[in-house]
Amino acid sequence: MATSKAAPARKPLILVSNDDGITAPGIRNLIEVASRVGDVVVVAPDGPQSGMGHAITIGNTLRLRPVDIFEPGIRAYECSGTPADCVKLAKREVLGGQAPDLVVSGINHGSNSSISVLYSGTMSAALEAGIEGIPAIGFSLCDYGHDADFSHTLPHIEHVIRQAITHGIPAGVTLNVNFPPIGRGPIKGIKVCRQARAKWQEEFDKRFDPRGQEYYWMVGKFVNMDRGEDTDEWALANGYASLVPCTYDLTAYAAMPTLNAEWDLPHATHA
Amino acid sequence: MATSKAAPARKPLILVSNDDGITAPGIRNLIEVASRVGDVVVVAPDGPQSGMGHAITIGNTLRLRPVDIFEPGIRAYECSGTPADCVKLAKREVLGGQAPDLVVSGINHGSNSSISVLYSGTMSAALEAGIEGIPAIGFSLCDYGHDADFSHTLPHIEHVIRQAITHGIPAGVTLNVNFPPIGRGPIKGIKVCRQARAKWQEEFDKRFDPRGQEYYWMVGKFVNMDRGEDTDEWALANGYASLVPCTYDLTAYAAMPTLNAEWDLPHATHA
Repeated sequence: MATSKAAPARKPLILVSNDDGITAPGIRNLIEVASRVGDVVVVAPDGPQSGMGHAITIGNTLRLRPVDIFEPGIRAYECSGTPADCVKLAKREVLGGQAPDLVVSGINHGSNSSISVLYSGTMSAALEAGIEGIPAIGFSLCDYGHDADFSHTLPHIEHVIRQAITHGIPAGVTLNVNFPPIGRGPIKGIKVCRQARAKWQEEFDKRFDPRGQEYYWMVGKFVNMDRGEDTDEWALANGYASLVPCTYDLTAYAAMPTLNAEWDLPHATHA
Repeated sequence: MATSKAAPARKPLILVSNDDGITAPGIRNLIEVASRVGDVVVVAPDGPQSGMGHAITIGNTLRLRPVDIFEPGIRAYECSGTPADCVKLAKREVLGGQAPDLVVSGINHGSNSSISVLYSGTMSAALEAGIEGIPAIGFSLCDYGHDADFSHTLPHIEHVIRQAITHGIPAGVTLNVNFPPIGRGPIKGIKVCRQARAKWQEEFDKRFDPRGQEYYWMVGKFVNMDRGEDTDEWALANGYASLVPCTYDLTAYAAMPTLNAEWDLPHATHA
């Protein structure tokens, strides 16, 4: 399979983004790890963008401001847009059209395993890079706390980044890596997994504002319908980090012959 | 293949949403068509949500207000959230947990073919229903105009809705249907296609605000790298409507053995 490999001659250029915002502890940890491997440029949202999915800003303006909150030598910018906007702006404006060797996103405060990949701003930054043909990885910790402890994930993240630089990532593929929280003990290993068949079952907490008008808070419960032992959910529940190769080609190929056989669709009368 | 079929005994219940907002002409056209086939309930954003991808509202409140702007008998609500929020709120709060027989989204003012499916609010409403196990279809017209002419698409949309009610949609699959603009002549047919390998190549229009601060407008050029004649882009360019079956399982299955063979990943030491 063709792989998109980073050039080995010089220090790799690594672009870092996230969805929790540029001041989140998770991105600070990721920058520290990425700096051990390559030259780091950061473009991340200026505020929380969790749950933004693959949103982009098309009906509004975008701001990009340099920030000086990391170690010396780290070029960093905060962006008013979504995680996908950050990657687009980074490539075109910050890097002047030069593609980085690798894009890493995270470390997310909270799980992006299974169906959460679709809602994830962290993964949308990585997938946006993937669409551009750039090797990219999203990292997430299954702990939503602002004060989450990332320490047990850092050697594994460095290892995965080095593997990506050395071996490349298969063309058209973006990696979604999730880690169990530190309380579960040492990480047993990193498993290549498929996305578990699961969903968020929403409940809505209905309240009334001071003017008597109703409003809702969305609250969700994660429901795993998948008993497979080759899924990300199984790996995380059993002490492993999960690594799911993701595609941005949503075509359900297996359904194409079914639809052609069962459905009556109009054909060309004058093709 | 297992299909999720609508119950045939009574008039089907059809939920309609979109991403251009509840006052857009496209949703009015879709409601009119859906009403010929079933009982219609509408829950749609109270303003434009184009490019919102699969965003959901988790850090903010949601509003839901009844509106009376359609034909008598149409229950309709505007929602302050994203298209995905609309479908979640519709099922839990408007329909009291009852699943509709079909969810239709659109008709979008503008193309959602190829890679645009990832950025599309129209398709996120449909995919959200798909994740819930509800048959769902997103409809889009390749004309961004507010005054776009949808008339040539309406008989085809009615036909596709009736096919979905009669034959069901394969389990785990959501349909992405796009139509060429009316200026291209009569629609030659509806082709089952795969998503073309293409991308949006962004440029940023840099300007200065009245206070001298810089800002950007994102402007994109669609680049199709795919010469295949089985793609949605080929179908649309050749006078056909495209119908792409979509999955929400992003796993790149073909890459799993490659990663296991080529990468050196830590394995369990005490599993």
